[in-house]
Amino acid sequence: MRIGHGFDLHRMELLTEMPGLELWLGGIKLEHDRGCVAHSDGDVLLHCIVDAITGALGMPDIGQLFPDNDPKWKGCTSDVFVTEACRLMREAGYEIGNMDCTIIAQRPKISPHKEAIRANLAKMLGADESVINVKAKTHEKVDSLGENRSIACHTVVLLNKV
Amino acid sequence: MRIGHGFDLHRMELLTEMPGLELWLGGIKLEHDRGCVAHSDGDVLLHCIVDAITGALGMPDIGQLFPDNDPKWKGCTSDVFVTEACRLMREAGYEIGNMDCTIIAQRPKISPHKEAIRANLAKMLGADESVINVKAKTHEKVDSLGENRSIACHTVVLLNKV
Amino acid sequence: MRIGHGFDLHRMELLTEMPGLELWLGGIKLEHDRGCVAHSDGDVLLHCIVDAITGALGMPDIGQLFPDNDPKWKGCTSDVFVTEACRLMREAGYEIGNMDCTIIAQRPKISPHKEAIRANLAKMLGADESVINVKAKTHEKVDSLGENRSIACHTVVLLNKV
Repeated sequence: MRIGHGFDLHRMELLTEMPGLELWLGGIKLEHDRGCVAHSDGDVLLHCIVDAITGALGMPDIGQLFPDNDPKWKGCTSDVFVTEACRLMREAGYEIGNMDCTIIAQRPKISPHKEAIRANLAKMLGADESVINVKAKTHEKVDSLGENRSIACHTVVLLNKV
Repeated sequence: MRIGHGFDLHRMELLTEMPGLELWLGGIKLEHDRGCVAHSDGDVLLHCIVDAITGALGMPDIGQLFPDNDPKWKGCTSDVFVTEACRLMREAGYEIGNMDCTIIAQRPKISPHKEAIRANLAKMLGADESVINVKAKTHEKVDSLGENRSIACHTVVLLNKV
Repeated sequence: MRIGHGFDLHRMELLTEMPGLELWLGGIKLEHDRGCVAHSDGDVLLHCIVDAITGALGMPDIGQLFPDNDPKWKGCTSDVFVTEACRLMREAGYEIGNMDCTIIAQRPKISPHKEAIRANLAKMLGADESVINVKAKTHEKVDSLGENRSIACHTVVLLNKV
């Protein structure tokens, strides 16, 4: 049995100032007046999950596994990184025991999307929904997270030896 | 065996500006020149623990389980939420393996209260003190946590199948 | 089996303003234009690891175990604290299952030092490198972490009963 923890944070900018930015969370596109400034699709939840899984396995992190200057990964959506992390996990002889994710965002409201995100993660991870959990917190209007200038995520995961 | 992680942060305001605010931590009321702006008693440690337990179980989070517009939970102190989370845990066939909590606060000093908080948590959770841990860190005077404008908590928990 | 979580954050100041400050990470000294303001060597990663291990064991935290006004620990480098935490762990009948550390720093770039840090941790902890993981994230230029005014670390650890 192995434990992993992922943390990720992305900056959000107003669409009026940087038109075309998008906000993706767990492979779901959310409507918002801001979007993430990031490589690929800026999906903070999926990036965090990749780091938790590869962290548990003692493997290189997301930036090393999927360098943004490698044409192989250029333009990939983040679900490709999750799929690859799961492949590495199975290759190493592990499966997901359970996973608990906490999204920290002042806005938009995450709760209406939680079940869709959870179902999407379960599919992406090849795991039962009962072992994948997603929750959301605001940051009470303080700091960049509370001022809606960033969005962050913590994920813990337990991997079982198959 | 299941893993859970809880994070919570509450804003603190000066009592001179918002008289009547209180600072509760693990069911213990602390003397301070600031109090938490929050629903219920604003006990950031207990809220974080509820999220860690229900997160490990893959159940709805504290905001969904105890909506502040539901008369059933209106005016409840947070130990009621912890007790209910424990009831759901036992119903699902789990017990606490161990729990490790980190309170982040610049002030007041938490260490004089740690043992009282720990004993209180153990009682509330129906667990032995040896499997419940509470520690405290400052935030080195930076950001809202370090400027004493907020207080936060991280909790990790391991649940064993009974 | 027991779980622990450590968090630590140190403030960094410019060497031009506070000459002589140093930046230590996992027992390795990094070249940087800033250093940590802290007791001992200010090694945020080692402090965080001590808290994760003693937190998992339900023991006092780093500030209580190694009070900076105790001559016994005065001037000690942080590896001494890690060694002592490991001694307490073995005395309690546990060993490291695996450990996953996340360093959050805008600068300097951690990746060139990751393998040296990991090897150093494994030696210090008396554990195989395969069960110790170190990853690094920036804080996307926001808040004190993103503005290079602080450096933080999260560590999760799983301890096995020997």
